[in-house]
Amino acid sequence: MNVEIVAIGSELLLGQSTDTNSVWISQQLALSGIDCFHHNSVGDNTARIVSVLERALDRSDVVICCGGLGPTQDDVTRQCIAQVMGVELAQDDSLVAHMEKLFALRQIPMAKSNLQQALVPVGATTLAEKPGTAAGLRCDVAGRGVIYAVPGVPYEMKEMVTGSILPDLLTKAGSDSIIASRVLRTWGTSESQMAELLADRIAYHDAKKGVTLAYLASGVEGLKIRVTAKAESQGAVDELLDEEEAWLRSLLGSMVFGLDEQTMESVVLDHLRSQGLMLAVAESLTGGYVSGRICAVSGASEAYLGGVVAYNESVKRSLLGVEASELISEECALQMAYGVRKQLGSDIACATTGVAGPKKMEGKPVGTVCMAIVGAGEDFSMTVTFTKSRERIRQLSTIELLNQLRLRL
Amino acid sequence: MNVEIVAIGSELLLGQSTDTNSVWISQQLALSGIDCFHHNSVGDNTARIVSVLERALDRSDVVICCGGLGPTQDDVTRQCIAQVMGVELAQDDSLVAHMEKLFALRQIPMAKSNLQQALVPVGATTLAEKPGTAAGLRCDVAGRGVIYAVPGVPYEMKEMVTGSILPDLLTKAGSDSIIASRVLRTWGTSESQMAELLADRIAYHDAKKGVTLAYLASGVEGLKIRVTAKAESQGAVDELLDEEEAWLRSLLGSMVFGLDEQTMESVVLDHLRSQGLMLAVAESLTGGYVSGRICAVSGASEAYLGGVVAYNESVKRSLLGVEASELISEECALQMAYGVRKQLGSDIACATTGVAGPKKMEGKPVGTVCMAIVGAGEDFSMTVTFTKSRERIRQLSTIELLNQLRLRL
Repeated sequence: MNVEIVAIGSELLLGQSTDTNSVWISQQLALSGIDCFHHNSVGDNTARIVSVLERALDRSDVVICCGGLGPTQDDVTRQCIAQVMGVELAQDDSLVAHMEKLFALRQIPMAKSNLQQALVPVGATTLAEKPGTAAGLRCDVAGRGVIYAVPGVPYEMKEMVTGSILPDLLTKAGSDSIIASRVLRTWGTSESQMAELLADRIAYHDAKKGVTLAYLASGVEGLKIRVTAKAESQGAVDELLDEEEAWLRSLLGSMVFGLDEQTMESVVLDHLRSQGLMLAVAESLTGGYVSGRICAVSGASEAYLGGVVAYNESVKRSLLGVEASELISEECALQMAYGVRKQLGSDIACATTGVAGPKKMEGKPVGTVCMAIVGAGEDFSMTVTFTKSRERIRQLSTIELLNQLRLRL
Repeated sequence: MNVEIVAIGSELLLGQSTDTNSVWISQQLALSGIDCFHHNSVGDNTARIVSVLERALDRSDVVICCGGLGPTQDDVTRQCIAQVMGVELAQDDSLVAHMEKLFALRQIPMAKSNLQQALVPVGATTLAEKPGTAAGLRCDVAGRGVIYAVPGVPYEMKEMVTGSILPDLLTKAGSDSIIASRVLRTWGTSESQMAELLADRIAYHDAKKGVTLAYLASGVEGLKIRVTAKAESQGAVDELLDEEEAWLRSLLGSMVFGLDEQTMESVVLDHLRSQGLMLAVAESLTGGYVSGRICAVSGASEAYLGGVVAYNESVKRSLLGVEASELISEECALQMAYGVRKQLGSDIACATTGVAGPKKMEGKPVGTVCMAIVGAGEDFSMTVTFTKSRERIRQLSTIELLNQLRLRL
């Protein structure tokens, strides 16, 4: 069985709104082991919606439509589904009563236009969950499949998908397996290297079933590896996930920096907190990005004192006490780290300096970055070269410094 | 002319990644007055991608494919387009040379799998922008339309869409008239207020032709208004744009902070530079975001000295000399600004402090933000309350402070 998602609304095609409903529904389907091969977005246009629904029924077993169930003229999903089913729309009096009740509770009069929300294609049924005025629909299209229609309002959609649609689909699929997944976050390798590292393991699981492995390049967030396991009981699923996580950790070693919702900065802060250490940061090239990411984590203040953005030479010299003759040097980065540690009284300090562009500095090419960490084991410094845009050089430097700090905690 | 977007990648169908590329491309199309009627997402499966591309060519003039140009076995976009075109793939030696250069700069060996990134459908051309190893493609499908293929990595995609694809499309759409547009960047009003402000003017142009107006809400980047003009000569187009810009500036006043690629921070830096002033920033709540945005502008060092991230109370007191008893107060923000101005020796200084959450502080609710600016006219301070997430509170505070600084320069 496979499911296709159709998101309806002109705002999606104008880029005014991001289709996060399809993302959420897809996550629920993936976690339930149900295939989803197509997402579509289409505007509030009857002919185009009908055509997209027809096509979806041709290639998929189940279609979930999101949006276009409101009370305005733009909301034509009901009409479109009726047309695909080859039936009329009829008023469902129980829906009128439901809406009248909702409006009475809100103490506002019900607009006449709301009555169109009580129209249902003949032969369709409404979903049990009714958090708002828009009813969800279950529409059998004889011999071709099923179309579900849910509102575009996320919490209404989620209630209907969780309460009615997923249970329907799982029953239909005849599956009483438990499915769960875990994401390993990694940093320090390329997508093509990861492909080579995991090729045999993916083939092994393909032959064996029960576990699937997938990886995803996520820019400065690194490569994510998703392990999904399917078994008869929660215990058996957890065991499969634990086994696979252990196997991957032994393969990838310190490249794995976290799990699921953990980020590089949250992991660094966890290490600092558990060791009772306070951090300070001195930034030139990154200009506040390292600090900005750290402070994005709720509770950062427990392990982060603050930092100095020493963009101008005068700040490096006067506030941080840098004496190195070359500012694009590991010597300068180390002195910046010492300086900020002294000024702020931290246990650990790290620093960045380099050439973000547009021009060479001190004869060093754009993308040259020097970093230093002091107070975590031996003094550490390194020079790397990134061949990217100004923005990417600054972002890559930020994550690379955080990663080096993690490896030393 | 209308354009359809096809996002390629199984991670989209699994809900592991949100298709923000289609959102961004749609915004650019909408602002350029080009219709987009369909978005599709499809996984890394040759048969399904080919089928989606065929369908897209049937109903749209131009197809923009995003993703599937990487070096792994999963990346099959090139093969699929060749199949739709009915041609073979051939190695483009200039792409091999380009990749070898990139890998040499990074000082890592090029994996053999990267060679597939040098394959191009016979008859297709590569786009001029080559920020990474994946080349963008322009593929004429005889008599049916054009398929563009760009990488899924956002910054690479954006560079190609801006540099090659949009200019192509505007030329295609414009017959032999000259078309040009200008974006006015605004801050300080809501989308619905802007709708009311511009309604009459939009109707006026609809009746008159030659100029079109569109606006787009862009979150912390404010509201963008795009003026597009069409005429027989460049001189006539420029005149229309100048007239409309003048009209909008007189309507919107200081809400307009910049044009086209200008950002709030680039405008602030321009003002500082032209007045020969140097800036310093002290941040608590924003934790480096203000500084990070300023340093994102090439040449920031000419007007920006640096800053202090005073996240912990100890840093506010010792380094910045804050004496205020309440840290979430305008008094504290002003003292932070004075402190950083003194420490760094700047002409102007600004500061943020506040409650990003998750908990109240000093009895003030999450979202309370105090800002101060000293050295630009009279001392300035204000308190605002943002009712959003931690991340949004920090981002909104950053842009609001920069805006207040702009208004005082």
